[in-house]
Amino acid sequence: VSTITTFAGSDVGVWEVVRLEPVAGESLESIARLEVIEGIDRVDGARWTLRGVPSYERYVTRVEQRNLIASSPPLGRPEATRAALIPIRKSSGWWDLPQDERREIFERRSHHIATGFKYLPAVARRLYHGRDLGEPFDFLTWFEYAPGDEDRFEELVLTLRATPEWAYVEREVDIRLSREPG
Amino acid sequence: VSTITTFAGSDVGVWEVVRLEPVAGESLESIARLEVIEGIDRVDGARWTLRGVPSYERYVTRVEQRNLIASSPPLGRPEATRAALIPIRKSSGWWDLPQDERREIFERRSHHIATGFKYLPAVARRLYHGRDLGEPFDFLTWFEYAPGDEDRFEELVLTLRATPEWAYVEREVDIRLSREPG
Repeated sequence: VSTITTFAGSDVGVWEVVRLEPVAGESLESIARLEVIEGIDRVDGARWTLRGVPSYERYVTRVEQRNLIASSPPLGRPEATRAALIPIRKSSGWWDLPQDERREIFERRSHHIATGFKYLPAVARRLYHGRDLGEPFDFLTWFEYAPGDEDRFEELVLTLRATPEWAYVEREVDIRLSREPG
Repeated sequence: VSTITTFAGSDVGVWEVVRLEPVAGESLESIARLEVIEGIDRVDGARWTLRGVPSYERYVTRVEQRNLIASSPPLGRPEATRAALIPIRKSSGWWDLPQDERREIFERRSHHIATGFKYLPAVARRLYHGRDLGEPFDFLTWFEYAPGDEDRFEELVLTLRATPEWAYVEREVDIRLSREPG
């Protein structure tokens, strides 16, 4: 079952905003803190909210799925006190493509799955889908990692942004977060 | 852009219900008429409402997409005074499968796209996705055809229900509809 998850930009919440930057298209309003709330789609007093559902896999094959499940760490590891929320919207040119051509660009040409896999188990990742909900972003990707893996995470993000897949990204905001240990 | 569409079972609406039958799992409450409303997700006075968005293609290849676009009639043809709404929910066993295995079952083993194609341009079809919206049905498929094509439509539905893909269908309701010409 897909549980809706709401990311609320506000003055409260466990995650402190380290920086919030537009990468493509319009940015989001600056916030001090971020709250992540499962099972609720409205949050009072937030400056903005973004919603998504974990949903099912759109591109992975059986072999990729097996490898990902074996190597993916859970969210909420005590040492993972850094996080990133990267909301993305892709162009209609992407969404009009048939499934085989999207897979071709996504993996054979851009190595999206293989690249993410290289950073496992250091960087935990969860993808939320917002497109069918009518949200302003098609995807919200949430990452968690330890402070010592910050440079590797930066490398992962820059690698993906240099791929042919990213030519279809028309809006992207990069939000980096930090929380107290424990 | 995905426009939400609401199917409202009520006592009003253009479409008269000819029959409403459960095929698998729980049925829906009987209704006299059905309204189809785009862009609105709430309808007052309805006995039930089902919601979906047209969304993007999950399985078709470039060749299939090209053929489908070339042969698919629009909705709302004057002669298409018969319609069917078939809401379906698939099992978690289906949704946990990787993309390649779902495609394998969907098309190579069940010929879902090829079968639908055989009934073009007689049977117009639109698929709405409800899973990410948290709806009780994953899909709402809407069909429109002329009274003379009723037997062929029945054949299409029975063909699909006999496929390996249908082993994953855990809830299905079959609603047949009719409207006045003109």
